Amino acid sequence: MTPYGAPGASGGTDLPAELGELALRLIRIPSESGSEAAIADFVEERLRRLEFLEVSRLGDAVVARSDFGRGRRVLLAGHLDTVPDTVPAQPAELVDGAVTGRGAVDMKGGVAVLLRLAEHAVRTAGHDCTLVFYDMEEVGSHRSGMNRLSRLHPELLRADAAILLEPTGGWLEPGCQGSLRVSAAFRGRAAHTARPWQGVNAVEVALPALERCTAHKPEVVTLDGLRYPQALQVVGVAAGGDSNVVPDRCVVHLNARYAPNRTKAEVLAELRELLGPDATDLDVTLDSPAAPPALDHPVLTRLSELVEGRVRPKLGWTDVGRLAALGVPAANFGPGDPELAHGPRERVGLAELAEAYEALEKVISG
Amino acid sequence: MTPYGAPGASGGTDLPAELGELALRLIRIPSESGSEAAIADFVEERLRRLEFLEVSRLGDAVVARSDFGRGRRVLLAGHLDTVPDTVPAQPAELVDGAVTGRGAVDMKGGVAVLLRLAEHAVRTAGHDCTLVFYDMEEVGSHRSGMNRLSRLHPELLRADAAILLEPTGGWLEPGCQGSLRVSAAFRGRAAHTARPWQGVNAVEVALPALERCTAHKPEVVTLDGLRYPQALQVVGVAAGGDSNVVPDRCVVHLNARYAPNRTKAEVLAELRELLGPDATDLDVTLDSPAAPPALDHPVLTRLSELVEGRVRPKLGWTDVGRLAALGVPAANFGPGDPELAHGPRERVGLAELAEAYEALEKVISG
Repeated sequence: MTPYGAPGASGGTDLPAELGELALRLIRIPSESGSEAAIADFVEERLRRLEFLEVSRLGDAVVARSDFGRGRRVLLAGHLDTVPDTVPAQPAELVDGAVTGRGAVDMKGGVAVLLRLAEHAVRTAGHDCTLVFYDMEEVGSHRSGMNRLSRLHPELLRADAAILLEPTGGWLEPGCQGSLRVSAAFRGRAAHTARPWQGVNAVEVALPALERCTAHKPEVVTLDGLRYPQALQVVGVAAGGDSNVVPDRCVVHLNARYAPNRTKAEVLAELRELLGPDATDLDVTLDSPAAPPALDHPVLTRLSELVEGRVRPKLGWTDVGRLAALGVPAANFGPGDPELAHGPRERVGLAELAEAYEALEKVISG
Repeated sequence: MTPYGAPGASGGTDLPAELGELALRLIRIPSESGSEAAIADFVEERLRRLEFLEVSRLGDAVVARSDFGRGRRVLLAGHLDTVPDTVPAQPAELVDGAVTGRGAVDMKGGVAVLLRLAEHAVRTAGHDCTLVFYDMEEVGSHRSGMNRLSRLHPELLRADAAILLEPTGGWLEPGCQGSLRVSAAFRGRAAHTARPWQGVNAVEVALPALERCTAHKPEVVTLDGLRYPQALQVVGVAAGGDSNVVPDRCVVHLNARYAPNRTKAEVLAELRELLGPDATDLDVTLDSPAAPPALDHPVLTRLSELVEGRVRPKLGWTDVGRLAALGVPAANFGPGDPELAHGPRERVGLAELAEAYEALEKVISG
C-alpha cells in the first residue's frame, strides 16, 4: 500500500495530477449508456484489490462497502455512463490543468474521485462507506442502474446519508425538486371541417386547461434557508394534423417541478384541478420523488461547513430523489461545471477534482 | 343499336334495372384508388364502341367527347376509384331495389349513369357532351386524376357547364366552398423544465392565436339564394411531447372553408391576422378553390328546374372547384345518399339511378 491511505497523507503527493490521470483513464474507456461493461470491469477490478471492501457486481453496476462497524455509513455514488458523442467532445487529454473528453465533467471526474477515495481514504475513514458506481443514468429513469438497485437490492443502498457526485461546480446542492409528468386527453367529436357544427373540436375543449396551466405560477418554497422555485410547464400538445377533420382528441403533457416539502399526491391534486373536469385518461408518466435538503443531518452539516457557504438548492432532479425515497438524506456535490455536461467542451479542472476529493475525504473521516 | 338511343326511348325499358345491372358490373371490378386500370379498361372499351365519341385514355382517366358542333358543351364527370374496403361493405348484389357493395354510392352508381348516357343519349342530345371518368379522387388532391387532367390537358375539360356526379341524394348542389389549409409555427426557446425561466414556452406563445382562431366564427354567406356557412377550425396542434424540455416550437394547422364569393388572398389575409405577429413559417398546405353556384347558367338553371327546388349549397369541397378554376360553371348532382359513402352499408337505389339518369338526359337534350 502507498502511504496515501493515511489520513491527510494525500497532501504529500500531487493529488490533482493523480486524479486527472485516473479521470483520463476512465474517459478513455467509452461508456455510452447501455455499453458500460468495460468501464464496470475496470472499476470492479480496482475495487476487488481492496480486501476491506465487499464488492458486488449487479449488471453493470458495482457496489463496494466497507464494514468496520463504524458509527455512521456514508453512501457515495456516481454513474459510469455518458451521453453519446453525437456532438463530438474534445479529445481525451490532460491539458491546461484540466481533463477534456466526453464524460470529463459528467461524470468521470467524479468517478475518479470515488475510486481514489476507495483506494486511499475509506480504510482509515471514521465512517463506514458504500461506494455505488452505476449504469444508465443518462437515459430514461426506468432504465437507470440506481433505479434497478433501489428496487432489487435496496439493502445495498442503506446508509445514514448519501452524496451523489453529479457535477455541481463544487457547490453543495442538497435535496432536489420532485418531478411529475402527467398526460391527459381532452375529447371532442370528429366531423368534416366543412360541417364542423356536427362535431366538437378537442383543441377548443382543451384550451381553458392550457390557459389555466400556462397562467399558473407556483410559489417559491424556502427550506433550510434554500429557495426552491417550483414550475409547471405544458411540455407537449398533440391534436389532429394537417387534415380536413375536426380533431376528436387533444393530448396535453405537463411537467410539474415541486419543492421537497410537498407530496406527490398534493401536486397531483393541483394538476387535476388545473386540468379541470374535461380532462380524461389522466396518466402519470414520470414520478421522480423530491428529496428534502436535510442539511441538519450531521454528515451533510459537515459538508456544508467545508464548502464555506457554497450551498444552493438543486433544481433539476437527480438520483438523490431515489435515495431520499429509501429514507437516506442525500445531497449533490461533485467536481466540475454542470453547464459543460453533454456539450462539445466537456472538461473538468484538476484543482476542482482535488477540492472535491479533499472535502469528501474530510466528510468520511467523521 | 337498341332503340334506347332515341330521345325518350329509355322510358320503354326497365331503366332502373338496367342501370342497376351496369352499376353492379362496375362494383364487381375492384378499383381502390391507385388500382383503377381494370375499371378504366372496361369503361374505355365500352366507349370506344361508340363511333361518334372521340376517346382519350390518359393514365387511368378516360375522356370521351362528342363533337357534333352543337350549341353548348356539357361536361359530365365521375371518378372510377373507391376508398379501400377497410370497413368491409356488404357484398356486391342487387337486392331490395338497390345495389350494394363498395363504391355503390361513391360513385359507381353515378359512373353507370354516365356510361348509359354515353351509350343511349349523347348521340341524339341537343348539346355536345364531354364525359370524364377519372382516377384517384379518394386520395390526396395532388394525386387526383382531375387535377392531372386540368394541369396537363385543360383543353379536354373545356365546356360551357359541368355536372359532377358525386352523390347528392338527387339534390342539385351548385358550386362549393373553397378550402384552405395553412400551417404556422410559433417559436419559443428550449430550456430544462426545472429552470423554465431560461426558456420560452412555444405553447404559451401560440395560445393567443389558438384563442383567436377558436373564437372566430366566420359569417354565413348567401349566394344565388343559397346559404354557404363558412368555417375555421384548428385541425392540428403539435408541440413537444412527454419530456423535460420547455417546447421551442408549436405548430398549428388551420382549415378554413370559405364561401365562393371570397378569394383565396382575402381568406389568407384573414388567417394571417388571426394567427398574429408571432406566427412564423406560414405554409399553405392545401389550396382548393371555391366554385360559385352559377345557377344563372342556362344548363344549371335547367337542372335546377328539373330537381324541383331540391337545391342546396355544397359544403364539402369537390372537383367542381377545379372545374370552376378552369372557368367552367359547375355543380354537383348525383344519385344516392352521400351519408352512406365509404361506410359498411354503401348502397344506391335503382330508382335513384333512374331519376338521376332522366334528369341528366333532359339537361343534355337542351
